[in-house]
Amino acid sequence: MADKIIRFNGFKQATVSHAAVGVWRHEGNQSHRYNALDYWVETAKTLEAGLFDGLFVADVLGVLDTHGGRIDETLKQGAQTPSIDPLLAVSAMAAVTKHLGFAITVSTTYEQPYLLARKLTSLDHLSGGRIGWNVVTSALESAARNLGYDSQTPHDERYAIAEEFLEVAYKLWEGSWEDDAVVLDRANGVFADPAKVHAIGHKGRYFSVPDAFIAEPSPQRTPLLFQAGSSSIGKDFAAHHAEGIFISVHKPEIARRIVDDIRQRAERFGRDPASVKIFAMATVVTGPDDVSAQALHRALSATVSTEGHLARLSAILQLDLSQLDPDVPLEYVATAGIQGVLEMYTKLDPERRWTPRAIGEFLGIAGGGAEFVGSGNTVADEIEAWVDASGIDGFNITDPMPLRSFADFGTFVLPELRRRGRARTHYEGKTYRESLYGAGQPRLRSDHPGRAFRYSTTGDDA
Amino acid sequence: MADKIIRFNGFKQATVSHAAVGVWRHEGNQSHRYNALDYWVETAKTLEAGLFDGLFVADVLGVLDTHGGRIDETLKQGAQTPSIDPLLAVSAMAAVTKHLGFAITVSTTYEQPYLLARKLTSLDHLSGGRIGWNVVTSALESAARNLGYDSQTPHDERYAIAEEFLEVAYKLWEGSWEDDAVVLDRANGVFADPAKVHAIGHKGRYFSVPDAFIAEPSPQRTPLLFQAGSSSIGKDFAAHHAEGIFISVHKPEIARRIVDDIRQRAERFGRDPASVKIFAMATVVTGPDDVSAQALHRALSATVSTEGHLARLSAILQLDLSQLDPDVPLEYVATAGIQGVLEMYTKLDPERRWTPRAIGEFLGIAGGGAEFVGSGNTVADEIEAWVDASGIDGFNITDPMPLRSFADFGTFVLPELRRRGRARTHYEGKTYRESLYGAGQPRLRSDHPGRAFRYSTTGDDA
Repeated sequence: MADKIIRFNGFKQATVSHAAVGVWRHEGNQSHRYNALDYWVETAKTLEAGLFDGLFVADVLGVLDTHGGRIDETLKQGAQTPSIDPLLAVSAMAAVTKHLGFAITVSTTYEQPYLLARKLTSLDHLSGGRIGWNVVTSALESAARNLGYDSQTPHDERYAIAEEFLEVAYKLWEGSWEDDAVVLDRANGVFADPAKVHAIGHKGRYFSVPDAFIAEPSPQRTPLLFQAGSSSIGKDFAAHHAEGIFISVHKPEIARRIVDDIRQRAERFGRDPASVKIFAMATVVTGPDDVSAQALHRALSATVSTEGHLARLSAILQLDLSQLDPDVPLEYVATAGIQGVLEMYTKLDPERRWTPRAIGEFLGIAGGGAEFVGSGNTVADEIEAWVDASGIDGFNITDPMPLRSFADFGTFVLPELRRRGRARTHYEGKTYRESLYGAGQPRLRSDHPGRAFRYSTTGDDA
Repeated sequence: MADKIIRFNGFKQATVSHAAVGVWRHEGNQSHRYNALDYWVETAKTLEAGLFDGLFVADVLGVLDTHGGRIDETLKQGAQTPSIDPLLAVSAMAAVTKHLGFAITVSTTYEQPYLLARKLTSLDHLSGGRIGWNVVTSALESAARNLGYDSQTPHDERYAIAEEFLEVAYKLWEGSWEDDAVVLDRANGVFADPAKVHAIGHKGRYFSVPDAFIAEPSPQRTPLLFQAGSSSIGKDFAAHHAEGIFISVHKPEIARRIVDDIRQRAERFGRDPASVKIFAMATVVTGPDDVSAQALHRALSATVSTEGHLARLSAILQLDLSQLDPDVPLEYVATAGIQGVLEMYTKLDPERRWTPRAIGEFLGIAGGGAEFVGSGNTVADEIEAWVDASGIDGFNITDPMPLRSFADFGTFVLPELRRRGRARTHYEGKTYRESLYGAGQPRLRSDHPGRAFRYSTTGDDA
């Protein structure tokens, strides 16, 4: 069962068009300021004022070029290109907040675990334990091509690499430095006790990391782990490792099936299924009353770029949709790839006649996630119903109107949810993990697989 | 000739013991707070208050384990381990400053150019054009061993990789997006004009990067480039690419020989030799009068760890010095490696009898760089004389007493240098490059090799 309290993360990408492709065109939209420091600082302050758990930032490492084999539509809509590296904006946001967590997307496919573990530990130190890591394996050919590979590593092997990557990272984060290794003994000239810092001796199929970690343990040691795998292997990876799981569907009944599946998988991995917190993507358009919210929703929807959505979807599916007639139902396109797409969308809505244009319109400003439009009271009703029907723990709230969407949510919706006892009134503890699990749990729970790598004097560490 | 104005960068590493190994032991020393956000925020504010050009941050990617093949002494003195990734503290420092530059050390050996170029561009956007990149090729076996290699790539090949790495980066930074590619045309739904964004088509010996850059151009495009190579190939690399060069010697006469050599090399690469700004490492211990400065210097010197210095030097030289008797002159040790060390130190000071202990004492709190001790007046005299005798452009000032050393320099020395017309009274322009070259030069100078990669409609770009 979901908690009584509904959890929220802000959900962004450091680019022009994220989930709502084309909405940057709306008069006064600030999406093009994704590369300005005050944009991120202001966003973080707004989220903390609303007592959001954190800011969740998506990322990609290559241009979206599947649609017609070109990047023209991608550039026209700023669809995930241009973008900047979200990890580098975190310390500025951490400096102006005290509790907000930062769940940043970083791929296991193009970095060395020793270096990436240090980067995340560095941010966990600087933020006082507020870093989350959204573990992804990267799906874009364009990323592979520009990052040292002839072509994409196959999907299942990417997950095998990710598994070993996490094993190395757990060894570095949990097993290398004991809690009391740093003694800061000025009199005897001992900063850290060499007897309490251990080489990890990792020698695996993909990585060899023999030595001790270069960084001392941060408040959370292992950052709060997020994942969003949707393949069967991806769901197992998430159910095994993730403390937060991100899903994207438009209806609570569909979410319910995914939630039940994830929790069953988590239980098979020996974890308390309730400890896996599940967040669904949601887009909220609100205002002082239903009429004004609906008017804003219409205005935003009018700026959506169907072609841009299809360019983005082509990249996500790694399947060129540009060749199709926008108004011909997919059932008439006799390729296995397109039939797979049709099957996917038919599952989402069996009633609809799925054409490329229908897909673009379906994605709309909510990008295929939940969509709530109305006054604070209306949205609070819908959010409560969605959570209770789906069994999720909360939402990743998108930001179609940067510097405004989160503020509107805080002004109109959160006070109403608080009155109903469904939104938090204060932060728990100091770290991101404590926001999810309560004060006193800054480190991995005892049923989490990473805990097996904690250094123990009776263990067999190298 | 050097400018009339003497330039200063703060010089740090995100670790416990940087140049002054052991000085963390001094009562009240704050070096152990290297992993706290307010420590970096405060440091940046102090440097900007002193009108420093920038903060230069060293980094290493592996533990120092050459000394006796162990990390015991490294850990005891916090000698570059533990450390955090300095790139991740930059946005917080950029948020509290307006002019200060940030020259961060990042290796070309363990990152993909497409990813690293994006990281530096991201920070150049977020900081409004205040990023510098200290290009290093990494010399530690311990880094290689934990980062995917069986052993270190040979020195000259690391520079060959770095050359191609920079070529790729120039193509991405200078050649992919034209200045007016971003049009933000809401009416016609064109964020960026596809005709003005170009694939770079790079196919080289070490890297293949066919596509367009994922990031739009930042204020400086190419970050301000620093280097510190001391081998012949390293000096050529620096003279070819670097806009700022960092050297570390204790006497101006030795600096003069290096400066003349660098400028001659730069000229051979077709560059204005005066455009290569040369910074020497310096440690300043100052106070209201000579007596108090000398007392502080004695107190700091008493905490220096000779053993820690030798552990750090062993790693720098990749040569184990732990086996030697600390008091036996090196001339009695008949190995080629040690004779090389003796030769190096004899060049620095032919008069001294070089034992391991003598080397540790020589390194002292200044780490082998220039050392200025006294009142503001005394230090200003010495600094002026050093600059005029050596022909350098300025200093990278170390920070043996974090949160105090830079403030003392600002309180006692800079006002005196300003009275003499030798320290700046205001910042030039908005970017780091303009700090060096004057307002109006945020991008590479026309005689810099990176300019050849600027997109041109008459060029042969792919």
